[in-house]
Amino acid sequence: MIQKLIRKIKETNAPIVVGLDPMMNYIPEHIQKKAFSEFGETLEGAAEAIWQYNKEIIDHIYDRIPAVKPQIAMYEQFGIEGLKAFKKTVDYCKEKDLVVIGDIKRGDIGSTSAAYAVGHLGKVQVGSKWYAGFDEDFATVNPYLGSDGVKPFIDVCKTEKKGLFILVKTSNPSSGEFQDQLIDGRPLYELVGEKVAAWGEECMGEEYSYIGAVVGATYPEMGKVLRKIMPKSYILVPGYGAQGGKGKDLVHFFNEDGLGAIVNSSRGIIAAYKQEQYAKFGEEHFAEASRAAVEDMRKDIEQALNSR
Amino acid sequence: MIQKLIRKIKETNAPIVVGLDPMMNYIPEHIQKKAFSEFGETLEGAAEAIWQYNKEIIDHIYDRIPAVKPQIAMYEQFGIEGLKAFKKTVDYCKEKDLVVIGDIKRGDIGSTSAAYAVGHLGKVQVGSKWYAGFDEDFATVNPYLGSDGVKPFIDVCKTEKKGLFILVKTSNPSSGEFQDQLIDGRPLYELVGEKVAAWGEECMGEEYSYIGAVVGATYPEMGKVLRKIMPKSYILVPGYGAQGGKGKDLVHFFNEDGLGAIVNSSRGIIAAYKQEQYAKFGEEHFAEASRAAVEDMRKDIEQALNSR
Repeated sequence: MIQKLIRKIKETNAPIVVGLDPMMNYIPEHIQKKAFSEFGETLEGAAEAIWQYNKEIIDHIYDRIPAVKPQIAMYEQFGIEGLKAFKKTVDYCKEKDLVVIGDIKRGDIGSTSAAYAVGHLGKVQVGSKWYAGFDEDFATVNPYLGSDGVKPFIDVCKTEKKGLFILVKTSNPSSGEFQDQLIDGRPLYELVGEKVAAWGEECMGEEYSYIGAVVGATYPEMGKVLRKIMPKSYILVPGYGAQGGKGKDLVHFFNEDGLGAIVNSSRGIIAAYKQEQYAKFGEEHFAEASRAAVEDMRKDIEQALNSR
Repeated sequence: MIQKLIRKIKETNAPIVVGLDPMMNYIPEHIQKKAFSEFGETLEGAAEAIWQYNKEIIDHIYDRIPAVKPQIAMYEQFGIEGLKAFKKTVDYCKEKDLVVIGDIKRGDIGSTSAAYAVGHLGKVQVGSKWYAGFDEDFATVNPYLGSDGVKPFIDVCKTEKKGLFILVKTSNPSSGEFQDQLIDGRPLYELVGEKVAAWGEECMGEEYSYIGAVVGATYPEMGKVLRKIMPKSYILVPGYGAQGGKGKDLVHFFNEDGLGAIVNSSRGIIAAYKQEQYAKFGEEHFAEASRAAVEDMRKDIEQALNSR
């Protein structure tokens, strides 16, 4: 799957992943109204609104991006109905040949991690049959429980040719509370990065491993160091746009080959129509605003990479 | 909710939580057959088998225990249908007046953590209405992302009078890879424990906080230290039984008042019928074996506490 991701990044010339993290207040009035008139102000109604919103955005951007990253929490908050919309979104994106990174940040131990891995990336056995539960292409994983927690995900990735992005240094302001603590003079996130590099070596595609890392755009200096520690790991970079990261902050996340990183933007793309810059599209044409925002983001990163 | 948990622990004289972590190979043949004959070897069939298995166990033990801890991964692996069985299990346990600890180990940042918190412990807004998605009483939370990740859960707990158990030192063999790393001479898990104590102070019930911690039974010496660092936090202790922890290892997790800890057993209770000790019940009467195993576990812990 890492090969597909790299191929699609080259084809679109866009090392971009769009975070499909729908909040109700992003969803245009007319979509909410239609969904509520059909299903009422219910969890089904909310799920329908989310799905219609996602679908229209995907239809307008799928040919310009390699990948999407639905954040499962935004669906899970609506219970079972929300998770149905998550699954529908995953399936639809795969139909459109997009690489789907499930932002699930799961992590547990042994058979429990294996269950998450099977549910999101693999197949589960029922009697003599096998079924895929959610069937994303990549998943994000939390490493706090150590190798026991991560290995079951890696095993499923080896079988299914899928991949992971493991949290190393997250984009939020308080990520340093634990991640930056110094151990023999070096921050914890470097230690985690070294583990990711080691796990990644067992799981090589061609030039890159299918075990990647998450490193926030908001910490470019740390990104520079981590890039060197994990030379063969793809880095998923959240924090661009709404969280404050800019194109020029991103250059150190990429390798000399122009590859090795994929930058996420969520609100900045899916709710672009709410920004002054794209207000001209109007709420009705929100998905066209998203398409324009993708193009601007692509150019911003390209420019930054060209001028390094 | 911490008050209800403590009251129920006192009433049952059992500081025990039963992990409802159904694996297909735990579920007796006759239950699987019946479910598959009705729904086929499908995800619905698996979910039905899980639900019937859980229900029979709950019916046999609900009056002897204060709480259950369904592990969501074991349901999530069966996709949407599995999660429906999770929700049914949560609802049924609450009907039986059990405290439900959702073992979800979620953790993200800001609005994403808030979405998980809302989905599992709170209510989500849809238009002018509010709905509970999964509606557990407590949830387990991963702290790797720092305060930004935990605070949104705490906020929902304050509103809803619910609670958390935050991962501090997990029971698995490799938990030390990151959790035991020394920071100024002290392991990371102590630092996390201090944070839990601080978060807990904002959220006091009567004697105990509703912000608790997870500390594995397999590390009794560390439990002793953490007990002192977090005197007012309830400690959820996994790793008893199948993972190797014994009653005598547990005493240091309790305070002098005999409270402050709740010990989890999953396989040891729900698949008790597979152990030599309980084989006499036979597969047909698996839930009676579970009841006997609960009683033995209660006695083991009581004895250990009495002889300290």
